[in-house]
Amino acid sequence: MTGERLGRVGVVGAGLIGASVGLALRRAGVEVLLTDRDPAEVSTAVAMGAGQPWAGQLVDHAVVAVPPGAVAPALLDVQTRRLATTLSHCASVQAAPLADLARVGADLTTVCGAHPVAGRAVRGAAAASPDLFVRAPWVLCPAPTTRPGAVADAEEVARRCGAHPVRMDPAEHDEVLARVSHVPQLVASLLAARLADLTPAEAALAGQGLRDTTRLADSDPALWGDIVAGNAGPVGEVLDALAADLDRLRAAVRGGTASSGHPVGTVAAVEELLRAGRAGRAHLPTRAGRVGVAWARLAVVIDDRPGQLVAVLTDLADASVNVADLAIEHASEHPVGVVEVAVAPSRQEAAAAALRRAGWTVQVR
Amino acid sequence: MTGERLGRVGVVGAGLIGASVGLALRRAGVEVLLTDRDPAEVSTAVAMGAGQPWAGQLVDHAVVAVPPGAVAPALLDVQTRRLATTLSHCASVQAAPLADLARVGADLTTVCGAHPVAGRAVRGAAAASPDLFVRAPWVLCPAPTTRPGAVADAEEVARRCGAHPVRMDPAEHDEVLARVSHVPQLVASLLAARLADLTPAEAALAGQGLRDTTRLADSDPALWGDIVAGNAGPVGEVLDALAADLDRLRAAVRGGTASSGHPVGTVAAVEELLRAGRAGRAHLPTRAGRVGVAWARLAVVIDDRPGQLVAVLTDLADASVNVADLAIEHASEHPVGVVEVAVAPSRQEAAAAALRRAGWTVQVR
Repeated sequence: MTGERLGRVGVVGAGLIGASVGLALRRAGVEVLLTDRDPAEVSTAVAMGAGQPWAGQLVDHAVVAVPPGAVAPALLDVQTRRLATTLSHCASVQAAPLADLARVGADLTTVCGAHPVAGRAVRGAAAASPDLFVRAPWVLCPAPTTRPGAVADAEEVARRCGAHPVRMDPAEHDEVLARVSHVPQLVASLLAARLADLTPAEAALAGQGLRDTTRLADSDPALWGDIVAGNAGPVGEVLDALAADLDRLRAAVRGGTASSGHPVGTVAAVEELLRAGRAGRAHLPTRAGRVGVAWARLAVVIDDRPGQLVAVLTDLADASVNVADLAIEHASEHPVGVVEVAVAPSRQEAAAAALRRAGWTVQVR
Repeated sequence: MTGERLGRVGVVGAGLIGASVGLALRRAGVEVLLTDRDPAEVSTAVAMGAGQPWAGQLVDHAVVAVPPGAVAPALLDVQTRRLATTLSHCASVQAAPLADLARVGADLTTVCGAHPVAGRAVRGAAAASPDLFVRAPWVLCPAPTTRPGAVADAEEVARRCGAHPVRMDPAEHDEVLARVSHVPQLVASLLAARLADLTPAEAALAGQGLRDTTRLADSDPALWGDIVAGNAGPVGEVLDALAADLDRLRAAVRGGTASSGHPVGTVAAVEELLRAGRAGRAHLPTRAGRVGVAWARLAVVIDDRPGQLVAVLTDLADASVNVADLAIEHASEHPVGVVEVAVAPSRQEAAAAALRRAGWTVQVR
């Protein structure tokens, strides 16, 4: 571990991310000061132990944790008041805030973009956790003019929050996020939007697959308007590529009809698409995987009794197996399904054996 | 409940669906005979108690539980051998098997399409459960020439499996399934296929949202080639509508650039899309919801310790609250998140109070 420079950090924006940064840094022994345009968020974060209200004291480093479109004015305000030696911002888009900062005349030598790729389904300081960033990637995106000291400070924040700092060019960051986050969000919304005219009887035929595919569609419209507008170039390119793939699929589905009654080529085209999708999905880290952490997975078949889940977890605990993650797979809506547990690879065999001894049907994945 | 006519039912195809039908009917006191082109599936199903091997005995009703493209020959075989008084088939596509049956000269007066909308992530007899269809919709799609007795028998199978029989025209069934199942499958595969060239460092930036959105992409290519080819018309129409929506979105994202640096109209278009997606998703039944069942939901914030999940469930059990369903929401990959539990609406208040007394942060949803 390198020498630690940060004694006092200021956080602008005391929502989920900002308050979680505060909690994590406090736990690491760093003094934290918090500010937000909503005083209630500051009060909540302070009550949770994320730091103290920021009343203009000087800090070593300021973390700006606000939506992408709000980064430049918030950061410029800290610079103008000369409150922080260096600054970073957590926006999920990097190139546009950098351009905004240049436009408003911010001093880019002391600023490093630094996006912690973590979050949770609930927003606001009340949902903050000191563990939010543990083992998560934290992407450092310095500008060409950013001084090494600013990058080092942003990296120290990431490290002391338990995250895994990685370095990317702002443009590469935005291209990757367009593919793994922004376009999936838009596609989920496109799919969900087409459900509006289903009758209740028709909607009742929807299963867990559709619910999973469209889960992101419940996201915040204002936040996503800001993100997509801030990353319009890369998002547009991914959407174009997706549209070309969709056109090819439509042509295959619309193909001529063979004597079998099936459109010519449809079966082959769909099978090829499904295989490509499986191959692409295999590139994702395993469910409970994180940079530097690989988990082994077990699938346990459970039935329609609520106590079964507790029983599986208890049987694992009795065998001294820690469950790193858990997911219930429902192909339909009632609690008959498969519970997938993630365990340390060294414990996978023991876990499977213990569960089988206890009478469970187990698949090692 | 109406009079029960079925004493002995034959099942063709002893995979997940067929073996589950066998288990459910056996539990309801019906004699079940099973056949499959794979003798191992029959052995597994018989060992699980789903019935006995079908060696040409006469049955009151035959349930054909094979992929859509295999329905017509399997069903015609039973008819030719005059083994069953009436027949139904479970295919997830209805119009094409009906056309296939007409083409091969099957007697349509004794056949009723009957699609149980249920499944699970694992396939084969070994994953079968007598509870698979409990409270699930079971869509009866008689042909115009189907006699009432055949419909009544298919309905009795659905009812005795614990399902909720609903009636739809085969064409309407196929249109609804295209929207709630077939196109979401294809879109998940399209999205996942675009991940193939991510580097591991880039893939590490993918979160739970992308994993959920593309989960369906792990499905079986051969099965889906068959389903999409069998429902090419309705699937093509939904894909066309989706492509038109995608084109509008691309135009908005590609719009001209305003002085703010944001494309003109992008923010408004994305916000409108997100709002439409939220509205569409609100049409889906609640997560643990089923026809005739409404669950109340609670979100409990949990931290990075495996024992927390057991503790939540134990605290609920201590308060005599049954958990009907459970989901862990991870916005990132490590076990910091929100566990969402579904409980009976009458128990929601007591459950929230018990959890808060035990020190949990709870949101009532």
